[in-house]
Amino acid sequence: MAAFVTHITLEHLEHLGQPDPDDLSGKTPSQKATAQARAKGYDGICLPLTNDQWKARWRELCLLHPEGSPDAAALEQSAEKWRAKPGFLRDEVTITRLDEAENSIILLSDWLELDAADAWVRHDAEIALQQELAYASYLNVHTAILPPPRNREHVASYARIINAVLSSVPYMQLSVRMPIYDPSLIHLDYGSTNAATCTTSTKPVADHPSIATWEMWDTIRCICDYHPRLTLALDLTPPLPSSMDVLRQWVAEPTRHLFLPASTFMPNAKGYPVLPKSTQSFMREIMKLQPVVMFSGTSDGLHTKGGEAAYSQYIRHLEKTSPAVKAMRTEGTVENFAQGYQDYLQAPLQPLMDNLQSITYQTFEQDPIKYRQYEEAVFLALSRWQKPGKITICVAGAGRGPLVARCLTAMKRANKEAFVYAVEKNPNAYVTLQERQRAEWGDKVQLLFGDMRALNVPEQVDILVSELLGSFGDNELSPECLDGAMRFLKPEGISIPASYSAFLAPISSSKLYNEARVSKDEKGMETPYVVMLQSIKILSGDGGGLSGKCGPQIQECWEFEHPRRDAVLNDQGLPLTNSHNTRAAKLTFHIPHGGALHGLAGYFEAVLYGNIGISIHPERMDKISKDMLSWFPLFFPFKEPLYLPSKSELQVTIWRLTNQRQVWYEWYAETFLALPDASPLVSVTSAPRTSGGDSLKIPSDKVAVEWSPFIDNIEMPETPRSGRVFTVDDAGIRLVKIGQTSLHNPGGRSSWIGL
Amino acid sequence: MAAFVTHITLEHLEHLGQPDPDDLSGKTPSQKATAQARAKGYDGICLPLTNDQWKARWRELCLLHPEGSPDAAALEQSAEKWRAKPGFLRDEVTITRLDEAENSIILLSDWLELDAADAWVRHDAEIALQQELAYASYLNVHTAILPPPRNREHVASYARIINAVLSSVPYMQLSVRMPIYDPSLIHLDYGSTNAATCTTSTKPVADHPSIATWEMWDTIRCICDYHPRLTLALDLTPPLPSSMDVLRQWVAEPTRHLFLPASTFMPNAKGYPVLPKSTQSFMREIMKLQPVVMFSGTSDGLHTKGGEAAYSQYIRHLEKTSPAVKAMRTEGTVENFAQGYQDYLQAPLQPLMDNLQSITYQTFEQDPIKYRQYEEAVFLALSRWQKPGKITICVAGAGRGPLVARCLTAMKRANKEAFVYAVEKNPNAYVTLQERQRAEWGDKVQLLFGDMRALNVPEQVDILVSELLGSFGDNELSPECLDGAMRFLKPEGISIPASYSAFLAPISSSKLYNEARVSKDEKGMETPYVVMLQSIKILSGDGGGLSGKCGPQIQECWEFEHPRRDAVLNDQGLPLTNSHNTRAAKLTFHIPHGGALHGLAGYFEAVLYGNIGISIHPERMDKISKDMLSWFPLFFPFKEPLYLPSKSELQVTIWRLTNQRQVWYEWYAETFLALPDASPLVSVTSAPRTSGGDSLKIPSDKVAVEWSPFIDNIEMPETPRSGRVFTVDDAGIRLVKIGQTSLHNPGGRSSWIGL
Repeated sequence: MAAFVTHITLEHLEHLGQPDPDDLSGKTPSQKATAQARAKGYDGICLPLTNDQWKARWRELCLLHPEGSPDAAALEQSAEKWRAKPGFLRDEVTITRLDEAENSIILLSDWLELDAADAWVRHDAEIALQQELAYASYLNVHTAILPPPRNREHVASYARIINAVLSSVPYMQLSVRMPIYDPSLIHLDYGSTNAATCTTSTKPVADHPSIATWEMWDTIRCICDYHPRLTLALDLTPPLPSSMDVLRQWVAEPTRHLFLPASTFMPNAKGYPVLPKSTQSFMREIMKLQPVVMFSGTSDGLHTKGGEAAYSQYIRHLEKTSPAVKAMRTEGTVENFAQGYQDYLQAPLQPLMDNLQSITYQTFEQDPIKYRQYEEAVFLALSRWQKPGKITICVAGAGRGPLVARCLTAMKRANKEAFVYAVEKNPNAYVTLQERQRAEWGDKVQLLFGDMRALNVPEQVDILVSELLGSFGDNELSPECLDGAMRFLKPEGISIPASYSAFLAPISSSKLYNEARVSKDEKGMETPYVVMLQSIKILSGDGGGLSGKCGPQIQECWEFEHPRRDAVLNDQGLPLTNSHNTRAAKLTFHIPHGGALHGLAGYFEAVLYGNIGISIHPERMDKISKDMLSWFPLFFPFKEPLYLPSKSELQVTIWRLTNQRQVWYEWYAETFLALPDASPLVSVTSAPRTSGGDSLKIPSDKVAVEWSPFIDNIEMPETPRSGRVFTVDDAGIRLVKIGQTSLHNPGGRSSWIGL
Repeated sequence: MAAFVTHITLEHLEHLGQPDPDDLSGKTPSQKATAQARAKGYDGICLPLTNDQWKARWRELCLLHPEGSPDAAALEQSAEKWRAKPGFLRDEVTITRLDEAENSIILLSDWLELDAADAWVRHDAEIALQQELAYASYLNVHTAILPPPRNREHVASYARIINAVLSSVPYMQLSVRMPIYDPSLIHLDYGSTNAATCTTSTKPVADHPSIATWEMWDTIRCICDYHPRLTLALDLTPPLPSSMDVLRQWVAEPTRHLFLPASTFMPNAKGYPVLPKSTQSFMREIMKLQPVVMFSGTSDGLHTKGGEAAYSQYIRHLEKTSPAVKAMRTEGTVENFAQGYQDYLQAPLQPLMDNLQSITYQTFEQDPIKYRQYEEAVFLALSRWQKPGKITICVAGAGRGPLVARCLTAMKRANKEAFVYAVEKNPNAYVTLQERQRAEWGDKVQLLFGDMRALNVPEQVDILVSELLGSFGDNELSPECLDGAMRFLKPEGISIPASYSAFLAPISSSKLYNEARVSKDEKGMETPYVVMLQSIKILSGDGGGLSGKCGPQIQECWEFEHPRRDAVLNDQGLPLTNSHNTRAAKLTFHIPHGGALHGLAGYFEAVLYGNIGISIHPERMDKISKDMLSWFPLFFPFKEPLYLPSKSELQVTIWRLTNQRQVWYEWYAETFLALPDASPLVSVTSAPRTSGGDSLKIPSDKVAVEWSPFIDNIEMPETPRSGRVFTVDDAGIRLVKIGQTSLHNPGGRSSWIGL
């Protein structure tokens, strides 16, 4: 649950300083404030560390004095003395005791201009900040709110200073205060003094201000190298941008605090304080991060109804009605099942190389949806079965037997006679299978012990059922295993699943980036992880982008089908090489709003039989297999964040590679900006694809354009083996490359998925 | 000196295969070719590894066969057999013996399309490449030329394959063949089939094709993570771009080979083969890298005069007349003095922390120019001296005494009586000083032992002479030392030097990037190096760029002046803090042509006295202090290369920071593309600056623009301490951020320059 604190102003503190009759006498103002806040149901207070006397002294010492003022020299003397040994006078700070700081969030002097245009002001502001943090650290303050950045022009200086204090102050959380804005409002403000550079602009500025705010933050945390103690305090004082897509980027950032002054609320019909629509939906979204909400001015009676409590009650209401929070609290949802696993990186299972534990099987057998879908698929296949005579089924990779049981149920329901072979290579699970056969299945089932790629089944079967899929479809080597099993499927036999596809989307998540980084050795960034994604934003949008060549938000990489007809087999019916299971895909994504690319989210979707499928594709899972628990998405990390400007295009290339011993993925991305006027730099990949909609299949026809800068050695392009027709396509715009990631592979050939 | 080899074609080899009368009988064709080449004065040959029989087999196996061709299945069988166990037949390769490979550069099958649009062609081309390299490696081939990339669209696949083979083949140098082009020619070719995407373009394409060629290379070597065994073989067959600035980028790359067919030459008036102007100047430039030049067709008699030898003789002539090569061979030049130190990274000296060795003093005393300038400065100061009475001079940091000697000579020349105090803190050098005083100087000089920041001089002097400058001016702590020495300079006294400035330029150099990287620990990239720059390109150009806000190619960071009047001093006349020696500069560079940013080149320029100066500013050193040897430039490395597109703007921020114990630099860069239409993202830094011209001073007036996204907390900006006036300036364009480097600092506070 989110924590609530109330913001105490200097005036309020002074008032509390006066002697008062009640039982709080003897307490310090901040102790009184804390006591009162607790009484009102807040978890604590947020109070400024320094007062106006400190502000006055700093300004006198550090700012320019009127030309030839008599005491200028003397002041410069004392300024230098202060710079040599910075420190406070008692009357310049609001707290002096450990217990005053214990439950408080401390606001550092927000008038310090660490990014002032003048280098001397920056220099002295840095000394002042170091002094305030040293004092806060002396009082064991756990969280300090930094003065906000004000000047894009000198944000690098602001960030350099924050980076320096992070290394000089241990333990303390430092939170950058960041107001976020409604573009239109910025627009209205164009004439004013603090938007000097915009005076000439005459038309709305789209999402730029909000991006500008995020871009400042991005620059700061990049210069601080994603320091884990550097967090965000979002200031919701100004009206928010209306576009949720722009707001959603803050969910991918370490947002720990929200400033929410009473002035942000408006009265509803009854006069109770409520938030504007856009702020409501943003609060519902951000609540899953359980931020600290900082109220202020709630006792000023800005609203006629509900009193002071109304504000926090209203926010609690928004939290309860947040879809994400609700899902987490609802039995049977993935979000509920995944409690505690959000953004937690796990190495993908390797059921082929390792023999799974019984507990692992049990976890996955808990999934009601997945096995329901399998039973439906088998049921449908049996129901449609016309041929006379006994039907044979083979469960390839029976594990502890869930699919065997479902097959038997499906047979009953379809009222069809069938015989089931159960193949399993895990000797331990095979014991469980023997037990179940004896107790439940009897002679309807024959157990076969061994690797489906090697062992022999007494006869070829009509239906081959397997559950070898990983989060990315093929990443647990289903294609390779089923290549081996096809030997004992009749030529016209049915494979369940019939096909599966892998999908990718580019995502931003400072959380996942830091999580992947902590596994310090390079390898940490070179293999994908299984993870329940939460603090992320998908950076891509649907639609063609400026070049008109971009696909949907989430794009298909490749597909595997079973049985495959075209493989070249040896006498044992096994493929001579694994070449036919290599894949490569180049995907082009439209990036509507600026963001930092940290990795790729991987999903899969499978057709089991007919119109029965399973899917973890975010846009379609609810239609195809709602509340299925067995798979979290895959996360392909990038070593370095890649900055993506608004309206840029991201080209992702991913390969599925193989040798005699392993299968692995390699991935890489390049980013482009589209400028008018065609030129040899035009570089387009795949035709716009429909987002898929309800159908299970997504059209994957590609358009490839070749341009060769080599005019002296013209060769006819090799006839495509696939016989695919290449259509030439000129976008009429120029794509200018602006950046790229490194190539990611599992430490060059080091084993990844063992065959 | 560059090495020359001759390119042997398959036809030529076959011809050599025929039995022949002469004494070469019994030799293999390639051995004969080598012998003949040697006889003609070549260092060796370049020959293809495979012949047309291999090409025919590969195509039959791996390319699509006409629909329903009878033997399709059988062919697919043998193709899979080949994929499972790739290997050559004897008649498919040109060499079989170790000694055949020993002195040869091997050309891999250039028809392999590693970047074909069709995934299957790529897949089988990779297997073929692995097979060819395995065979070459078996024969101990030292250098293999890779097939050229042809398709920007799939360059990532090309690069992934090269990265894979680099790790599977040890030792061997792999060189990517890269033709470079004249844009206008590409333009003419627009209609043709292999420039499909360009058909609509109607106007000249500026430098894009040449950039495109380089961009392909950049993508490849980035994906191969700047592998040290990956080099470049530039193909000069097509006419080169006329812009030397575009061509110069290849000097910053690992260019090891040049393809130079006879067809590239044209006959001069007399009928002898010569190269076009642009190619000439490019050859002169690139020769300093001592590449291997590969001739071909030189025996076809394309030119009437000079015979086969004419081509290599002409190239030798270009080499001899190359300015860089000439300078290296001329006594007394920096280039000659620096032999063997080109691109070699050295840690900067710390004469303050460390006591230099006599050998170090001796090296620097060899510099005739530097001390001549100092003598002139002292002479000029004495000549202009009007006041009556004895003149006193103090040499602060006398070392082994060169400046003391020069002062005495200057006194004689100016015919002025003066007394010299020589201060030195190095006890070892102090011995030498005592010796010289006894032998040469006598009572004209008084030696004083100690640190100029602490010791006392008997009287305040008229002229203070010091040589404490580093490659970046202040990087050996001249400002801090002279702060200490000012105590014993009369208020109206003269300091020699009077002032010095630091300069920066953004550079590209894959050599320096890899050199800095090998010092594997992060620190390697966190401190500047002293280095004689050779394989570099300065990426910036003069002029305003699209935003009109860019400065000149090389820009001034900051300046130090002595004596400084405004420092606040304690009773001992020492500054209370070192704050006044901190500096910060933000510089905006225009990047005319795309490139990879690897670091910053640092230079200095000093005014000794009047119009006498010393400078290592590349554009001005020859005017101010030609052939001065004492300083190589400074190199500030970046951890990761930053991609800079054509016409982008680079904003560099650098800080000179200090605490009680050290001084250090931190640096950072952001890159932008300028798009039309103003918006709050406009972010401009310094007004266009004149390139300096002849005068020693460069105007450094800055224009700062502030934009604050915070509309609710408007505060008047703090009055600038410097009292400088801020003019608001709207460029009328939008700068879109597209990338940034990390912040570079010496491992967060770890000692750098010890005070």
